[in-house]
Amino acid sequence: MSIGLTEFVTNKLAAEHPQVIPISVFIAILCLCLVIGHLLEENRWVNESITAILVGAASGTVILLISKGKSSHILVFDEELFFIYLLPPIIFNAGFQVKKKKFFHNFLTIMSFGVIGVFISTVIISFGTWWLFPKLGFKGLSARDYLAIGTIFSSTDTVCTLQILHQDETPLLYSLVFGEGVVNDATSVVLFNAVQKIQFESLTGWTALQVFGNFLYLFSTSTLLGIGVGLITSFVLKTLYFGRHSTTRELAIMVLMAYLSYMLAELFSLSGILTVFFCGVLMSHYASYNVTESSRITSRHVFAMLSFIAETFIFLYVGTDALDFTKWKTSSLSFGGTLGVSGVITALVLLGRAAFVFPLSVLTNFMNRHTERNESITFKHQVIIWWAGLMRGAVSIALAFKQFTYSGVTLDPVNAAMVTNTTIVVLFTTLVFGFLTKPLVNYLLPQDASHNTGNRGKRTEPGSPKEDATLPLLSFDESASTNFNRAKDSISLLMEQPVYTIHRYWRKFDDTYMRPIFGGPRRENQPEC
Amino acid sequence: MSIGLTEFVTNKLAAEHPQVIPISVFIAILCLCLVIGHLLEENRWVNESITAILVGAASGTVILLISKGKSSHILVFDEELFFIYLLPPIIFNAGFQVKKKKFFHNFLTIMSFGVIGVFISTVIISFGTWWLFPKLGFKGLSARDYLAIGTIFSSTDTVCTLQILHQDETPLLYSLVFGEGVVNDATSVVLFNAVQKIQFESLTGWTALQVFGNFLYLFSTSTLLGIGVGLITSFVLKTLYFGRHSTTRELAIMVLMAYLSYMLAELFSLSGILTVFFCGVLMSHYASYNVTESSRITSRHVFAMLSFIAETFIFLYVGTDALDFTKWKTSSLSFGGTLGVSGVITALVLLGRAAFVFPLSVLTNFMNRHTERNESITFKHQVIIWWAGLMRGAVSIALAFKQFTYSGVTLDPVNAAMVTNTTIVVLFTTLVFGFLTKPLVNYLLPQDASHNTGNRGKRTEPGSPKEDATLPLLSFDESASTNFNRAKDSISLLMEQPVYTIHRYWRKFDDTYMRPIFGGPRRENQPEC
Repeated sequence: MSIGLTEFVTNKLAAEHPQVIPISVFIAILCLCLVIGHLLEENRWVNESITAILVGAASGTVILLISKGKSSHILVFDEELFFIYLLPPIIFNAGFQVKKKKFFHNFLTIMSFGVIGVFISTVIISFGTWWLFPKLGFKGLSARDYLAIGTIFSSTDTVCTLQILHQDETPLLYSLVFGEGVVNDATSVVLFNAVQKIQFESLTGWTALQVFGNFLYLFSTSTLLGIGVGLITSFVLKTLYFGRHSTTRELAIMVLMAYLSYMLAELFSLSGILTVFFCGVLMSHYASYNVTESSRITSRHVFAMLSFIAETFIFLYVGTDALDFTKWKTSSLSFGGTLGVSGVITALVLLGRAAFVFPLSVLTNFMNRHTERNESITFKHQVIIWWAGLMRGAVSIALAFKQFTYSGVTLDPVNAAMVTNTTIVVLFTTLVFGFLTKPLVNYLLPQDASHNTGNRGKRTEPGSPKEDATLPLLSFDESASTNFNRAKDSISLLMEQPVYTIHRYWRKFDDTYMRPIFGGPRRENQPEC
Repeated sequence: MSIGLTEFVTNKLAAEHPQVIPISVFIAILCLCLVIGHLLEENRWVNESITAILVGAASGTVILLISKGKSSHILVFDEELFFIYLLPPIIFNAGFQVKKKKFFHNFLTIMSFGVIGVFISTVIISFGTWWLFPKLGFKGLSARDYLAIGTIFSSTDTVCTLQILHQDETPLLYSLVFGEGVVNDATSVVLFNAVQKIQFESLTGWTALQVFGNFLYLFSTSTLLGIGVGLITSFVLKTLYFGRHSTTRELAIMVLMAYLSYMLAELFSLSGILTVFFCGVLMSHYASYNVTESSRITSRHVFAMLSFIAETFIFLYVGTDALDFTKWKTSSLSFGGTLGVSGVITALVLLGRAAFVFPLSVLTNFMNRHTERNESITFKHQVIIWWAGLMRGAVSIALAFKQFTYSGVTLDPVNAAMVTNTTIVVLFTTLVFGFLTKPLVNYLLPQDASHNTGNRGKRTEPGSPKEDATLPLLSFDESASTNFNRAKDSISLLMEQPVYTIHRYWRKFDDTYMRPIFGGPRRENQPEC
């Protein structure tokens, strides 16, 4: 008799778990992508996203040849995979690594860019496509589709520009671009969900206001939940001091609580990505001071790594998806029509972004006109902020798939056309605008040319002494406050220097009440230390 | 009109992704478990596994009350979740954190315990149950079931004992218990898979030999694949030196390659857990010296954390499963019958383990009789090794579910009886034997009493000077070798001190060829350094 153990085991697991083969292939390609990304690190024209897209496209070609033209996909697009597993680490990491001082300091500006900006951009892109698409012969989209397109193409991907900007030399610019990038992602997703529910049959003048009201409700409750979970985690870590027995537990608690905040938000029908973002900010501000040194190093790197893998994963997917000829064939548009529609979207993206970056910058400069620091947003900086948000990335793709496909598949010609157009716009903006970012930044900020060593892995927090020296506010304390006219009462100060005043009161509150309870170092320049 | 954004979002994600609620609840309970485990850390009667089981049982009770007796489960048991996501990090971490010097040094002993031991134990438990179950009135199991039961109850869980043993004071004992624990897991799973394919209809005398032959083939190819992936990773990390640009990439490559080794093994129908174990050993031996300091710290903690979460997760599941009254009702056994069957299994576990620990220890002592070091396994140590492997854990549960249920559900009374009995044996051995471990170790090794500070999070590698001092071999080098009789030729040395000689040649080979290519520090006591 023959036992045939080998034959038995052959394909047993593969048969039981059909995803073994695609997962293996995808992980192997991810590794390849990391190695190529590393080798091209010196080449500043190509960034991580471009590498991943190109490697994805190459893999797609190989798979297309092996499957004899049947498919270019390794994995089927899974909305759940994206929204439950890939997005949370990216957003949490953004919150965790954000330069909190700068983020809070420029809070109002970042919020106006990230929230009001998305609204303006959505309106322009929605109306623009609604007006222009029929003129190009592209019909069949509903009002909801047009609004969804507005939100899909309002979510930006600023990673490419952040790799080039130097945070020590242009702290304000870096902070604005980074801050807007993360708030923008959250806003787009929340707004996208809000658009899904508008009842177009009974549209009244109240609609816009109600969308905005619901948006504000979601925004504030999600933020509060994130802050709550972050504070609880910090408090537990400080009170129990897990590191006494095991650093493993500290880390596990941080990772689990971060993920729990996202899941809780989804459970309570809030915006998970806003919650997880603020949970990350709070954990980084308080909790990371309550753990052992090795846990602090580890947590920072773990979150960066998870985010990195998730981002690469998504761009790889976009790359393979670009070769999905089924969608191309299903599309209702001819080659020329596709080019026209993509061109219109790209033009509207350029316009929609210009329509809020320049006016809001002027407004911010007006609000800050009384500050002593020379921190107004110059025109050159405005151009860079505008440019930095032109790239469209992972979130756009995910939202487009959510709107126009069912689990990555669509048989409807109009929907297929929108998916292919989204892919083209993402590829075009990432590749072409991405390639041009370096020359543009060098042209506008020539002093930066010799310092382009920043990279994604280095988006870390340590406040270098140099950096603090460029920000007089951060050495602002009780005794130094006599430099200001003490006669002015708080109200008039608030009117003239609103951001400064809020920031100053927040710092006092943080030092007096929050840090003693939730953890974090006393500020060295505080006299009472 | 009403936009109803809130109602829209309400339960939208929960409806689309039905696992949001159970995942949230499970993560919250995991966090609770970590906190309770931390608070009970000082209490040496209770360990992490016991805490998780008890918290799981408590949660199960609450869920049972909420669901009015319908279910005690939060998550449905998912074989895939266990074998594809939970087991690999546990085994990889075991390989990564294993004290390599000691592991290689005691390689033959560990292998004889971990491989031959499992065979002996499987034979005794299989024959014992086959002989005794019908006498207890428990019938209906096939020959395959009995063999599967043998492998299921041959996989040990040594975590409990490792928390109590002190690796600096009893290095040999710790190394044997730890090493056996990881090899044992791998062997049980491979043997379980081998048993599945025996064709009992045409059984001949060759069967046992063929199973053993196939087992050896699987064992060696899986090991080679793990070593290969580990070496490739080390080589790539050393050659490209990712840390130059980004520590994130180093970490990502290590994590992805580790997981890839597991998936590749499954793809090629090999044993993933053996592969991932040896991949872990190789990465820890070479690759971890090729990365930056922060990546070294991070990788160690990340793998420990993932393993910790996975283990806690499994024990939590076992706890909730204990209250699954559906299985209790479906079981073909009465209460007394269940006690009898569980008692028989527990007795056979005790016997099956005694049947190989003592004879193999005597054999090992005989093999090492010529060594100069006083490193024989004393009778007290033999008793501790025997006791350390009595606990049954996560692997037993997973294999039992695989054999006797379909996705955690069974309607067959005999299968339900086996699942409940497995749960009882795991609970009994973990709780009762676990509780007794501390007093036993203290009685047998009284000098250890004041040093019980070890814990899972601290199973780390750093070779302390103290430790090296207790191991003369590790300061054995070219010049010191004159202490030995140089006139003896290698062959006779090999005959008399096989382990020493192999280890010595391996060290020379490692220093001369492997480390220069794959990374790792030169040994300080080497004259050429």
